[in-house]
Amino acid sequence: MNVTVRGRTQRFRTVTFDAVTNHVCLVEQRLLPHDFKIVTTKNFHETARAITDMVVRGAGAIGATAAYGLAQGALAFRGSDLKKFSRHVETVYQTLKAARPTAVDPVNSMNDVRATMRAGQTVEERQTLALAAAEEFANGDVRHCEEIGKHGAKLIRNGMKILTHCNAGWLAFVDIGTATAPMYAAQAQGKKFHVFCDETRPRSQGATLTAWELAQQKVSHQIIADNAAGHLMQRGEIDLVIVGSDRTLGRTGEVTNKIGTYTKAVLAARHKIPFYVAIPLSTIDWNLKRGFEIPIEERHESEVLGAWGTISNPQSARRAYVRVANPRSHARNPGFDVTPPELITGIITPLGIFKPKELWKQRRRLGHAD
Amino acid sequence: MNVTVRGRTQRFRTVTFDAVTNHVCLVEQRLLPHDFKIVTTKNFHETARAITDMVVRGAGAIGATAAYGLAQGALAFRGSDLKKFSRHVETVYQTLKAARPTAVDPVNSMNDVRATMRAGQTVEERQTLALAAAEEFANGDVRHCEEIGKHGAKLIRNGMKILTHCNAGWLAFVDIGTATAPMYAAQAQGKKFHVFCDETRPRSQGATLTAWELAQQKVSHQIIADNAAGHLMQRGEIDLVIVGSDRTLGRTGEVTNKIGTYTKAVLAARHKIPFYVAIPLSTIDWNLKRGFEIPIEERHESEVLGAWGTISNPQSARRAYVRVANPRSHARNPGFDVTPPELITGIITPLGIFKPKELWKQRRRLGHAD
Repeated sequence: MNVTVRGRTQRFRTVTFDAVTNHVCLVEQRLLPHDFKIVTTKNFHETARAITDMVVRGAGAIGATAAYGLAQGALAFRGSDLKKFSRHVETVYQTLKAARPTAVDPVNSMNDVRATMRAGQTVEERQTLALAAAEEFANGDVRHCEEIGKHGAKLIRNGMKILTHCNAGWLAFVDIGTATAPMYAAQAQGKKFHVFCDETRPRSQGATLTAWELAQQKVSHQIIADNAAGHLMQRGEIDLVIVGSDRTLGRTGEVTNKIGTYTKAVLAARHKIPFYVAIPLSTIDWNLKRGFEIPIEERHESEVLGAWGTISNPQSARRAYVRVANPRSHARNPGFDVTPPELITGIITPLGIFKPKELWKQRRRLGHAD
Repeated sequence: MNVTVRGRTQRFRTVTFDAVTNHVCLVEQRLLPHDFKIVTTKNFHETARAITDMVVRGAGAIGATAAYGLAQGALAFRGSDLKKFSRHVETVYQTLKAARPTAVDPVNSMNDVRATMRAGQTVEERQTLALAAAEEFANGDVRHCEEIGKHGAKLIRNGMKILTHCNAGWLAFVDIGTATAPMYAAQAQGKKFHVFCDETRPRSQGATLTAWELAQQKVSHQIIADNAAGHLMQRGEIDLVIVGSDRTLGRTGEVTNKIGTYTKAVLAARHKIPFYVAIPLSTIDWNLKRGFEIPIEERHESEVLGAWGTISNPQSARRAYVRVANPRSHARNPGFDVTPPELITGIITPLGIFKPKELWKQRRRLGHAD
């Protein structure tokens, strides 16, 4: 998407690969929204470190980073011994996999790359195929988001006010994003609309990342406290809700997403406001039978008890954490919640918009292998 | 309520009067939760300033402060000329009224004091009556909260988990509070329960004031992000919701309270969790006919775009504001919302618990003069 740096607007992907230098290039997301910078990792160890340290985050983005990291590691191999090469590639794979042990996207994307590589007869052929497969994974991620945008843009009419929660934007993918894809597509079609970004406490991804993205893309938007959406819906100020999802159950149509999503779905249902979830097919879980089985990560209480931001001194601005809460009190901090299918108007996928309960019926088309 | 300072536990009211020195004594609420301090105002000008500067905030607390301030001003008068005295009292009244021009509580409490004073025949008699009336207003505020506690405690059973929003605690009144009154009364009865305090963005009164109060009173509690209550309700972790109210419409049973209250009521209704509102009679508005007529204050966007807290340096801790949001983005910041009667299980008043729609039927008992 477009980013304006010192007055110059350029198009960036979250993750790219420089084949000349064998470097992975990443938007340094930890500096956003206060600073925009591209960092390069010089070898697969640095790429794994960037995933661990959350220089890059978001399902599609870390998937593509791991795929490029595997190609980067393969390309760095010197020699023609296929056995040694395979052992080396295995080391690279395990290093990148361990970078974020609970994430499924790096494993899936690297499995793609590995499967493609096997067709090569020589080290050099396999190196070439590795890079081609990584590029294909990244381009596929972009295409899927473009398709989501194409289908979702039909939901957006001129003058609409749209609510979104957390960040399912281009920063979480290689480009375009999922929940934001319909907005960017509608904007390209010349439609005018306004977006309310839920702040999304405790980590404030809405106030930081989504607001930054929308500002860069010149989409009209305002940040609201998570408490305010109900009031705005009551006063007729929200026409449509679009969110992303970390995991959608293919068997039931239940949607896991950032904490607070369920609350917005309940409010939208009460006010008969359409509530859509935009997802790539890779986030559909075809195995779990009930949303109640989804483990909900309990995160560190410090996120709830305070906030990270920029503190302005007369001399300089710097990042700081402030403790907001009573010093002697503790917090609960569930990271995700589960929204049941009856609250969801539709699920926007690269293959079209489905009712949550239709996913299972359409499972072969949607990539379920049984 | 109890406050422990340097290991010693003492009982405090939010507002008291020292008749020997003619000083009003106030809990300095702007330092909470990080510091507990009592400040004294030496004359009615300083008392007005304390109201303006929000040293003291909350309906009952500023009502009592203004009542004491009027007595303080009256008592400072030297001489026996009744006409000069009346002119002086009028100046005091107007000064205190102007301290927080939109608040109704100081006006109501000072009208009480002025009406009582008129029975006096001399300056000295009127001075004595002024102080007695101010004390009576403060004691009345405490009694009303105690009665709310008595009625509300019946709703709390052993082992319950209770959600509250914002701060309708003793800091907002002279003592005990409204939403917290049932909790303190149940605690005194030996009941065991746990309280979830909504953080209450954007001003975080739940994370700061309510959590501080509950910690001082040794009530088991945890702070949660405003996004988390829906998830906790879904998992059966909340049994009861009790909130306060800034203005309740006597004709319709609609409740105005801090932004986010409506959302919690919608969630509670979906999960069939009892949702109660605790109010003193003084906050019932008998005039407005529809909640839609209640003006909703739009507050400054800086509250949503950042957070106030304590920043720890190796050398010292100090208060600081951090900008959380994208620097180029703006915010909407409605301060209150309106909860319709069908979402409210009951309204806890000093005279008992009523269905929202019963208020109008019981209007004579509840103090409506028509």
